Amino acid sequence: MRAMNFNAGPAALPLSALERAARELLDVESTGMSIMEHSHRGKTYEAIHNQAIALVRELLGVPDSYDVLLLQGGASQQFAMVPMNLLEAGKSADYVLTGAWSQKAYKEAKVLGKVRVAGSTEVDKKFTRIPKATELELDADAAYVHVTSNNTIFGTQFHEFPATGKAPLVADMSSDIMWKPIDVSKFGLIYAGAQKNLGPSGVTLVIVDKALTAAGRKDIPVIFQYRTHADNNSLYNTPPTFGVYLLRNVLDAVKQAGGLPAMEKHNREKAALLYSAIDARPDFYRCPVDKDSRSTMNVVFTLPTEALEAEFLAEASRRKMVGLKGHRSVGGIRASIYNACNKEWVQGLVDLMTEFQKGR
Amino acid sequence: MRAMNFNAGPAALPLSALERAARELLDVESTGMSIMEHSHRGKTYEAIHNQAIALVRELLGVPDSYDVLLLQGGASQQFAMVPMNLLEAGKSADYVLTGAWSQKAYKEAKVLGKVRVAGSTEVDKKFTRIPKATELELDADAAYVHVTSNNTIFGTQFHEFPATGKAPLVADMSSDIMWKPIDVSKFGLIYAGAQKNLGPSGVTLVIVDKALTAAGRKDIPVIFQYRTHADNNSLYNTPPTFGVYLLRNVLDAVKQAGGLPAMEKHNREKAALLYSAIDARPDFYRCPVDKDSRSTMNVVFTLPTEALEAEFLAEASRRKMVGLKGHRSVGGIRASIYNACNKEWVQGLVDLMTEFQKGR
Repeated sequence: MRAMNFNAGPAALPLSALERAARELLDVESTGMSIMEHSHRGKTYEAIHNQAIALVRELLGVPDSYDVLLLQGGASQQFAMVPMNLLEAGKSADYVLTGAWSQKAYKEAKVLGKVRVAGSTEVDKKFTRIPKATELELDADAAYVHVTSNNTIFGTQFHEFPATGKAPLVADMSSDIMWKPIDVSKFGLIYAGAQKNLGPSGVTLVIVDKALTAAGRKDIPVIFQYRTHADNNSLYNTPPTFGVYLLRNVLDAVKQAGGLPAMEKHNREKAALLYSAIDARPDFYRCPVDKDSRSTMNVVFTLPTEALEAEFLAEASRRKMVGLKGHRSVGGIRASIYNACNKEWVQGLVDLMTEFQKGR
Repeated sequence: MRAMNFNAGPAALPLSALERAARELLDVESTGMSIMEHSHRGKTYEAIHNQAIALVRELLGVPDSYDVLLLQGGASQQFAMVPMNLLEAGKSADYVLTGAWSQKAYKEAKVLGKVRVAGSTEVDKKFTRIPKATELELDADAAYVHVTSNNTIFGTQFHEFPATGKAPLVADMSSDIMWKPIDVSKFGLIYAGAQKNLGPSGVTLVIVDKALTAAGRKDIPVIFQYRTHADNNSLYNTPPTFGVYLLRNVLDAVKQAGGLPAMEKHNREKAALLYSAIDARPDFYRCPVDKDSRSTMNVVFTLPTEALEAEFLAEASRRKMVGLKGHRSVGGIRASIYNACNKEWVQGLVDLMTEFQKGR
């Protein structure tokens, strides 16, 4: 029986994408080899690699003036690569702090150059909301403005991105890329670790304005220059071939399911189900996040006591629901409901919430 | 029918490791989830992660005074990370050039600090041998001495490593790690992309003397510091979980097959078969590599004309042999016969060589 997977990431993947991988694992396209055994310079892998990139372009409507790169190292490596490439000496970069991940990105950039905090919603080590555009103090001359579009730990999400003038907007979209259609042209650079909505961990998607690729610093190691990967169609060094293959399978499943408009509908329905269940019993379930900052990907809530939370999690586990424990830094319950999380699983969780609260 | 896979990398993997992955792909250890869907902070993945590291330690006899790290980015990223960590300002590092990969490592280090060429066997853009220890001009005060233990393109291999005094020896073993037992204590740092003898591409193994980990530079991004990954058991950021899982499967298969002594016997037999076939017909098949520098992993040879080579490759392809075309920079034929290459495949190639030459 398939588990009801609410993991924050790595997370559930579309079953059809996994079934295809299981079927082809020993022999892809009748070549007598696993995709993992194929050369990254061979026709079979290269076609899959190009399909993956084409699907990113198609689903997100990426303009031709942007490079689509498939890299390694996760968002954590992008925390360093973004300033290494885009933060010239004499310039400063703006960071909007909305949680632990943006803090990490900020700290890493600080090692490499001049950075500013352009806004923060931290109160008592908690970030329960996204700052309003009017609260930000943006540097008009910033090399770029960095935001984390969705905050897995605190359950918040940008529903509108700040206008940053001529400073390029850089967004870590690791936990909500592909959840709905976006206008890529509003961003200078988007990056995302794959392990939420794209595929397995070990692949990193970077979408970058070609003007930024070209203007990037050249005094850093070639492996860390975006242009190296752009100039070589992300085949400068051996890519994580199986990860790219599975990303192709996942994006193909997303396309078959109706693309990003269908994903948005599906995700909004799941989030509405869950937030309604919370709001229906405000004395028992409580979401600490401001309503207009609530995430459609990570729904966090608390119960009246830690003991009740432990009991709730134990009952969830008996029903084969996994990954519901809140991040260790904040506690409570967290349901991560990315693209591949079924509506039935969310309904199962809502049923548990209803039954659990009854008589208490 | 399984192809006879002579790919240079990504390359053949042990069939049992792949079969296990195929069997478990949708449901690992009866958890109702793919290993790719498990949290890297959960018990199931963590046990596999630790098994992978323990198998590296056991098979290679890694001393406790060394860290074993599972990273991302391949050898190409280590070309930068090694000098970032180990090349302090005011120091210089020695590079021994034996092929395209060591040249790349040298060039990348040059961006980051002072480097010297301590020896090179380049003649007319070719590297047909490994330098003798007496040919090297080592800097006694070098931060480290870098070598590439096996050269996939030119088919050469170090059969004895130079004594480097107090300068730590750093070896890129991407293409021959685990081919036989080695004395890890002779090295300061060993790194290897997984895609030859270890697993799928996207995982990088680093084995580093804890003294070097501790002495590494702290003025670089935390994601690139070896200590970050050593302090966090390679779980600082999300690891490439499926890649590590498969690496565990591969190393388990190596252990079941008798460990590295058995691998050495198996590899020496295959190499002997192939080199004997070449040497038996010196007017037709020619290996450009000095006999004492020949690689047990990548066997390169030429035929009298390019037209004959093309014909040979076409016949190999008809017999379902893949990956035999030499690297585009050198041409000819290359048979990569890593651990997972079966002796039967090598025998098949030898049979082809015999039949092809007859009557010509």
